[in-house]
Order: sequence, then C-alpha cells, then structure tokens
Amino acid sequence: MPDVLKQAIQYAHQNRSIFLESLIELCRIPSVSTNPDRQPDMEKEAHHLSNRLTHLGFKKVQVIDTAGHPIVFGELTSPTYGAKTLLIYGHYDVQPAEPLDLWETGPFDPQVRGDLLFGRGASDMKGQVQACLAAIESCLSTGSLPVNIKVLFEGEEEIGSPHLDTFIQKHKDMLACDLALNPDGEMIAPEVPTIIYGLRGLAYFELRVYGPTHDLHSGLFGGVVNNPAQVLCELIAGMHDKRGRITLPDYYDRVRELTPEEREEIARTGLDDNYYRGQAGAPELWGETGYTPAERIGARPTLEVNGLLSGFTGPGQKTILPAYAMAKLSMRLVPDQDPEEVYHQLIKYLETHAPKTVRWELDQMASGPASISERNLPGTRALIRALEEVWGKKPVYKREGGSIPVVSSFQTILGVDSVITGFGLGDDNIHSPNEHLNLPVWYRGIDAIIYFIFNLGTSNE
Amino acid sequence: MPDVLKQAIQYAHQNRSIFLESLIELCRIPSVSTNPDRQPDMEKEAHHLSNRLTHLGFKKVQVIDTAGHPIVFGELTSPTYGAKTLLIYGHYDVQPAEPLDLWETGPFDPQVRGDLLFGRGASDMKGQVQACLAAIESCLSTGSLPVNIKVLFEGEEEIGSPHLDTFIQKHKDMLACDLALNPDGEMIAPEVPTIIYGLRGLAYFELRVYGPTHDLHSGLFGGVVNNPAQVLCELIAGMHDKRGRITLPDYYDRVRELTPEEREEIARTGLDDNYYRGQAGAPELWGETGYTPAERIGARPTLEVNGLLSGFTGPGQKTILPAYAMAKLSMRLVPDQDPEEVYHQLIKYLETHAPKTVRWELDQMASGPASISERNLPGTRALIRALEEVWGKKPVYKREGGSIPVVSSFQTILGVDSVITGFGLGDDNIHSPNEHLNLPVWYRGIDAIIYFIFNLGTSNE
Repeated sequence: MPDVLKQAIQYAHQNRSIFLESLIELCRIPSVSTNPDRQPDMEKEAHHLSNRLTHLGFKKVQVIDTAGHPIVFGELTSPTYGAKTLLIYGHYDVQPAEPLDLWETGPFDPQVRGDLLFGRGASDMKGQVQACLAAIESCLSTGSLPVNIKVLFEGEEEIGSPHLDTFIQKHKDMLACDLALNPDGEMIAPEVPTIIYGLRGLAYFELRVYGPTHDLHSGLFGGVVNNPAQVLCELIAGMHDKRGRITLPDYYDRVRELTPEEREEIARTGLDDNYYRGQAGAPELWGETGYTPAERIGARPTLEVNGLLSGFTGPGQKTILPAYAMAKLSMRLVPDQDPEEVYHQLIKYLETHAPKTVRWELDQMASGPASISERNLPGTRALIRALEEVWGKKPVYKREGGSIPVVSSFQTILGVDSVITGFGLGDDNIHSPNEHLNLPVWYRGIDAIIYFIFNLGTSNE
Repeated sequence: MPDVLKQAIQYAHQNRSIFLESLIELCRIPSVSTNPDRQPDMEKEAHHLSNRLTHLGFKKVQVIDTAGHPIVFGELTSPTYGAKTLLIYGHYDVQPAEPLDLWETGPFDPQVRGDLLFGRGASDMKGQVQACLAAIESCLSTGSLPVNIKVLFEGEEEIGSPHLDTFIQKHKDMLACDLALNPDGEMIAPEVPTIIYGLRGLAYFELRVYGPTHDLHSGLFGGVVNNPAQVLCELIAGMHDKRGRITLPDYYDRVRELTPEEREEIARTGLDDNYYRGQAGAPELWGETGYTPAERIGARPTLEVNGLLSGFTGPGQKTILPAYAMAKLSMRLVPDQDPEEVYHQLIKYLETHAPKTVRWELDQMASGPASISERNLPGTRALIRALEEVWGKKPVYKREGGSIPVVSSFQTILGVDSVITGFGLGDDNIHSPNEHLNLPVWYRGIDAIIYFIFNLGTSNE
C-alpha cells in the first residue's frame, strides 16, 4: 500500500468521531424537499454543505438556484497533470418523516444507540454524502489528491429531480468529467459489498375521482349515486391480474427479459424469500408469478399504491358518501420502458375502465427511465478493488429496485457512466420511521471511497 | 278552528324571529358527538336544552348521564283528565363539520342568507327540535295543552345511539307514552309534506388491512410484498357485482321484496332520476339494476365506503409501500335484515377473499335494524290532518333511506309506534358542508306540529 494511501486511511480512522459529528449536523436540518414549509431548511442545508466544501479547500463553490431547490457544486484540482476527473453525486434532501408517532426519537434529533445512528437521512443519503466528504478530507490530509474531484449535491432527489436535467444541460462544461460516483445504492448485508449495475425507473401519479358535488348523506343517496371511493378501489383493483401482472394496455411490450446469465447472478446474491420476509415483516411474500423475489425487485416493473384518501378518516363514524377519492400511484419501470408511454397506458386504462358515473383527473408527477450500466468500466474495476480491499471479498452485482434518475441523465446528457454503490443496508428503514445507519459498515465505506479514489488515480485506463 | 288552536297559531306567527334566534343559539354550540374534544360542548348543549325546558314550564327536567353523552328529559302534564301522552324524540348532536374549507360561513357561526339558515345541525336536527319547542311554547301560551308531553333529546344519534337502548330499558316508566313523534325525517320538496313509514337500518364498520411492519421503500420492496392499500381496494371492489348488487354471502336472503302497491306508491312520490341527479350533482346515477332510484333508496340495502386512508396523502410524492390501509364501511339495511347477521356475512366475505399476504381487523361500530311503521295509527292520522291543514294537500308516504334506530327501540322496548316526519329538505346538505334550513318551510312545520298536538288531543281513538 502506498504511503499516502496508508496515511489517508489512518487519518480516516483517527477522525471517525468527528466525521460522525459532522453527519449528525447534516441530519439535524429537516431538509424535506416535498414540503413547501421546509424551503428555509432546504436553503440552510445547501449553505451548510457549501460551507463545508469551502472549508475543505474546494474551489468554485456555489449554491446554484434552480426553479426548485438549489444545487451545491464545488471542485478540487489534483496536482497531478492529466489526472482523471471524478464527479460525485449526492442529494441533501430527505423523505417526509411522517408518521411521527412511530419514531422512537425525533427524526431530526439524530441519536446514536449502540452501533446505529437514528435520524431521517442518516442512511438515505446524508450518511453517504458525509462518507464522501470524509474520504476526500482524508485524502487531502496527505497533501495528495490523485484525481480531480467535482461534487454535485441536489435537493430534489426525493421528489424525482424535476429540475436536474435542465441544470445538467445548462452546466455541461462545469460538470465535465471522466466518470461519476453515485453512492445512493445500498449493500445487501454488512459483509456483502455491493455494486449496483441496474436501476428501475419511476413514474409517479396522483389519481383523483370525483362523484357528487359535495359529500352526501349515505342513507339518502347511497344506492343511487356511485361512490367515488368505491370506483377508485375498483380501478386500482383492476390494475393487477391474478398472477400479479399489471393490466395496463401494452405495459409489458418493452420490458427487457432477463438473460439466463443475469438470472444466475441474481440467484448468487442469496436474496431469498426469507431475506425479504424478514426485512418487511409481512406475513407472506407476494408478486408476479414466474420470477424470484430478487428478480421481481431488480428486473420486473411494478405498480404501487403509495397513498389513499377519501371521505371521513377520523375516529368514530360519519355516514357520508364522499364527493371525492384520491390515490397516489407509482410504477417502478425497467429497461426499456418509457415513462411517457406508461403515462399514456395509464390514461388509456382509465378511459376504458372508469365509469361515466364519475369524473377523474390524473396528474403526472416525477418520472424517469430505468438504466443499466456497463459493467466492465475502469471506474467499476477501481471500485471492485476498493471494496475487495476493505471487505476482503469480491462485491456482488445487483440490479436495484429503486430509481436514481440522475444516472440516466448523466449517461444521456454528459455521456458519462456512473458507478453505483452505497453503505446503507436493506433494513435501515429508509423512507420509513426510525431510519438509521449502521456505523461500523459506514466507517468501512469511508475507507472504501479512499481506496477507490487512489485506485482511480493509479489506473492507467 | 277552535279558538285556542287559532291563538296558538297566531302566537307562533308573531314569534317567528324569536324562535329563529333560539335555533341559532342551539346551532352555535359545536355538539359533534363523534369528537372526544367536543365533550364539554355536548354537556353545554344538553344543559342549554334543559334550561329551555325548565323555562317553558316542563317538570322533572333532567340531564341524565349515560356511558356516553347525556340525555335530556322533561315532561308537561295536560290539565285534561285522561289526556294522551306524546313522547317527542330529538337529538342534539351533529355530524362533524369537516371539510371546513368548503363552508362559506363557519359551521358553528349560524347565518341567515335569504330564506336559508346556514349552520351544522340547522336541518339535522336542531331545527326540528326547536320546531317542537316552538310549537309547545305556542300551545302553552294559550293556557291549554291537549296532551301530556314528554321529551327525550339524546346526544349520540350521529354515532349510532350506542347507549340509548340501555337508557330506554332503565327508564321505561319515565318514558311511558301512547305514541312517539320523531321529526328526524325530511320532506320530499317544500310543497310536498311527507310522512316516513319505513326506515333503513345501519351497520357501520372500520376495516384495517396490515401488511409489512412499517412503511417500506416502494423501489426496494414493491413487487415482493403485497401492498395493503391494493388489497383493501381489491376487497372493496369485490363487494359489489356488475349489477350493483352486494356480494356478501347470503346478503339478500332476508331482504323483504317490495309489493306492487308499495312500488306504485313510491312512484307517486315523483322522485325520479332528475331529482336525485340534481340533488347530488353527480354526472350520472348508479345502482342496483331492476329498481328505480327511489326504490333503491327506500327499500334496497346498500354498502358504502365512507372513508379511505393509507400511506402518504399530502402534497407531492412519497415512494412508499404503506404498512397499513383503512376503510370506513357502512351498510344501510332493510327489513328483515339483521345487523348482527350482516356483520358475520362481512367477516365471512373477508375470510374467504383476504389473501394470506396481509392481516386484517374489522371493528363493528353502530348498528340497528330497519323498521316499518303501521300506517293506520291514530297518531299517523292526526299527523296527516295536520300536514293537510297547513299545506292544503295530502302528505305522501315514503320509505326513507336513512336510519333512525330509536324508532325500532321504541317499538321493541316501549311497545310504542313512532310517527315520523320532518321539515328539512333533501337539498339541505345535511352531513355535508353548508348545511342549511329552509325557513319558510320550517315556519309551516311549527304550525303543523301545533295542529298535530291539537288533533291528537281531540281524537277519540
């Protein structure tokens, strides 16, 4: 191991508690991007991050306004002539913390209990952002930086990055790089370092069904006026068939089938029924017949109800026929589905199946296509070696169920591939109450990023 | 017209603005029985009413505690030896006012606009309670009272009167009477005085479906864990068939079919498709095939979704697979369905159709059977004549879609029939925002109750 690398790792080990403190500071700011009331907190977190970059020695540090939440940018130049440029992507926004009563400690009052740090964003993905900053600080402490580094931290990932593509288009030169690191993935288990090579896309909708002009007395109108809540249920129920397949017209036409090699590799991840049942705590698993759970997560499209609201939902009873019913619906898309096409398939389904007794409206919200990365990139090889050096074993390759639209944006707009990893775990409760980060794994993650930066700097590819 | 009756009517006409003021006072108190926070307001309204009774000269006035909200009682004795005893039933509780933003003026800040009084409870049924008190005051002003009068005002009608039966059982002697007047019905139109002879029963439930132990990331678990919101939708969708019939096992076994005479009478009410469409503002009507809308409302059972709640329902988007989904469900029952039997039919349906991928819980809430009154009672004849005298035309007979469980309780426990009428209208928005009362109709209603009391006192039956 070269001396500078050894020094950087040593620095990282000596400064773990300071790195953790910095992460706790990040997690204290309730940067919930979907909530308009949190706008000041979004600004606060963006400026907090830009101050951190300036403090670390980054140049051209900027908090850049978009039509939504601001983007934080900064860059560091390697003293080595001709050094490669790595663009590190992160997001500083988080999911809403509700339902608050299910948190054991406040979502924005981060607390360490045992090996875990609890708090919204601890795993997704302030912990990953902080791991990168800690690794960079460790490299800089040696006086050496083997690659140029640019960072882009956005504030709208959890709402589908609506303004990111425009930003990337506008700042192509500023963002120019050789490859991107996206640490928004996750590991299969603490001892299983993971590289993500496929991501699902996302198409998010709000469907509203309107019946009578106002809530009606269910005794005086029940049986003669169609109930919008019932109609909404019928529409949603019809979106899957008995085999767990989605019934929107032509929905599977563009779905790329798994190759036998891919199926073998997915089987090797060891993510079986027990794993998913244990993580979810559901009585039994469910899903499209003919595919294993890991295949369904990584390579099959889904349609989920994310929320339902209609009529009276308080304690007690109210005998109304509601005027209105709403569902939040989202689909995870796989290659080569097109979010725009899927939107029109949903409209067609509704036009065919919604009865004339109601009116309906469909809002298209976030959307982005799925992506599959090349697996034999120099960056990927640098990451494989880094993970191997820290964990002492080869990483597994995984097609991920989640969506990281920025990966396809970097690919299409900048022409740059992303290597995707991450040091969160499947049971970190991300997007749920009691989100947490496994600190021993996270500390190893910091080491792995340091190795990755050095591997990248010394590779001749 | 006897002089005393003439004097009473005159008194009623001269005191309309004072009667209205008294009604406004009643409506100012937010006596929402289903909301535990409103407990003090329930007490306040009960005591306000008992003070009114005392002031009018009622004896034995009491606010009687129950296991829920208190019941107000009082009685007046006629100077005539052997006078009949009339028990007037009313409820002083109201439905919740939500959604508040749809009210043009505050639900508990009653306002007169043109001929209408706006406010929660104005029509259902503080207006009807006040009409009775105004009529009694008018009779008393003449120094004459042709019948003994007892009043019972409960505070739990809108939550299914859970403690009323126990109360009636316990106070059988106190409540002893010859017949009951229940003014909680409504009129078909301002010029169509209406007598209700049939009421639907009610069975109200909360159904909860549980999947994973906590909200999951929809990308990481969608497709392998069954979504409780989707399961709830499937269960609800399956509760009706394509003909609008309810699919619970044996649900129609006890449903009493309409006789040809009844169908003719219902047709004579003139309540056609246009009437219901106009009242509801729905694009098209809906319901069980083979029955007219008025038949479906009066004589066919229904199953309604009163509320739905699951997952994320705020503005924006959250990509979760929710842990839990809830529906409020209620059924309107007809003779001779049994609410307890219907509860078991629903359980059987859920046991058959709920998948093993979820857990479910069903809470049984309010329930009461349907009722049909004898139509040739002395009390009914006294009411027919009263309505005829005020409106100059014969009333129509209607089977009502709503539920008044107290009618069957009086029948079974006290052995007493109720005559059911009311001076609210179908478009009063009861249970909805902007509830209101048509004042010219209401003033005629006061007259009609005065006539009814005198007719009852002079009938020899």
